[in-house]
Amino acid sequence: MMKRLLLLSNSRSADEEPFYWAADTICDFFGAGVQELLFIPYAGVTLGWDNYTDWVKKALAPLGYRVLGLHTQDDPRLAVQRAAALIVGGGNTFHLLYHLYQNNLIETIRERVLVVGIPYMGWSAGGNVACPTLQTTNDMPIIMPPSFNALNLIPFQINPHYTALHPPGHMGETRDDRIKEFIEVNRSVKVAGLPEGCLFRIEGDQIHMQGRHYVRIFQYGAEIKDLDAISDFSFLLEPN
Amino acid sequence: MMKRLLLLSNSRSADEEPFYWAADTICDFFGAGVQELLFIPYAGVTLGWDNYTDWVKKALAPLGYRVLGLHTQDDPRLAVQRAAALIVGGGNTFHLLYHLYQNNLIETIRERVLVVGIPYMGWSAGGNVACPTLQTTNDMPIIMPPSFNALNLIPFQINPHYTALHPPGHMGETRDDRIKEFIEVNRSVKVAGLPEGCLFRIEGDQIHMQGRHYVRIFQYGAEIKDLDAISDFSFLLEPN
Repeated sequence: MMKRLLLLSNSRSADEEPFYWAADTICDFFGAGVQELLFIPYAGVTLGWDNYTDWVKKALAPLGYRVLGLHTQDDPRLAVQRAAALIVGGGNTFHLLYHLYQNNLIETIRERVLVVGIPYMGWSAGGNVACPTLQTTNDMPIIMPPSFNALNLIPFQINPHYTALHPPGHMGETRDDRIKEFIEVNRSVKVAGLPEGCLFRIEGDQIHMQGRHYVRIFQYGAEIKDLDAISDFSFLLEPN
Repeated sequence: MMKRLLLLSNSRSADEEPFYWAADTICDFFGAGVQELLFIPYAGVTLGWDNYTDWVKKALAPLGYRVLGLHTQDDPRLAVQRAAALIVGGGNTFHLLYHLYQNNLIETIRERVLVVGIPYMGWSAGGNVACPTLQTTNDMPIIMPPSFNALNLIPFQINPHYTALHPPGHMGETRDDRIKEFIEVNRSVKVAGLPEGCLFRIEGDQIHMQGRHYVRIFQYGAEIKDLDAISDFSFLLEPN
């Protein structure tokens, strides 16, 4: 089976309902065959996993999907093994990865997505965790996972909520500074800065970007590239 | 001996020479007895440690100090054991902590500061690493240290470059959201959001804040507090 991923920079936008900006693509991605989505809420921290699941239920009900919270299942591994589709929410990436390890889910999710071929949708932290590592997160390291290695479903890193903006007067690092530090230390890995309102759709060896903004590509030893939705992103799927 | 720390949110400000905003306090802190500062450049990533050390040399020469780069020393532990004063630079906090562990310096620095009482100045990542952990950093986790536990020279966490600003339209977490996630998971630890142009000076059991901005205090189960330079910060030095 081919792998199928929909990786969104964000769920909410300022003026619209959650997922509204990507609704058509989400429905097309899951197709008519999928009715229930298994939701992994582990990135949620202050909201609580029940509340987070309710929020996702309400957001995806108008699109015709039922949502099941993984944290409500007695045996999370079994629930993943039975799921027809996975959705992984944003929040704190360290918290998400910590609880994926805690519940021994890394290999199970990899098998479901890479071998069985069930569709995987992730937004923000849920997109980041599909990458080789969590190392391009913007989140605070509030808890230490046993490893920074993540699901490794794709061979490149996403930086979610990517922005080239820099608050005036702020003397800390810009986002570009931070990503350049990452590629300095991790030279073989490419990074895609994915602005809000943008997503990657991966179907086997095909990758497309959708969104009205440019995606910024960082690669050690190469100039920064800004690519739009009609660009060829297939180089991102090449092995490192 | 009493412990002596000067923890700055930042080194540079937009319109002035590096450290200019804190120059009087720096001179008063080290006093006339200290001529040479041992500089730990490990937070530097893209600049390189030689260039970073040169930058600090130039910045502190007008204040009358010589600066020695720790990375130029054959035996870093011995260099720390002989140092009259330590300065720890900003950059990437994960990179800094990784190399402190790599060079087996954690306990040596703690002994010099807590037992012998040599002065410790840190800015940005160099202030953060004086805390119990690195877990309130804003930096990207570009490298995994063996532990998030840091120098633990003070019992509270600093969030450097603290800002309540939020770029318009950005749907990711605010800085306050991120720190609230931290205290949700680490309930016994207080966090001080230290804006640029602010510093903490700690002399034994005395702590003072200096700067024209408010420091925002986050504590689990308590309302957020904004404290100015004439406020009493001694509660931050209480054990957790």
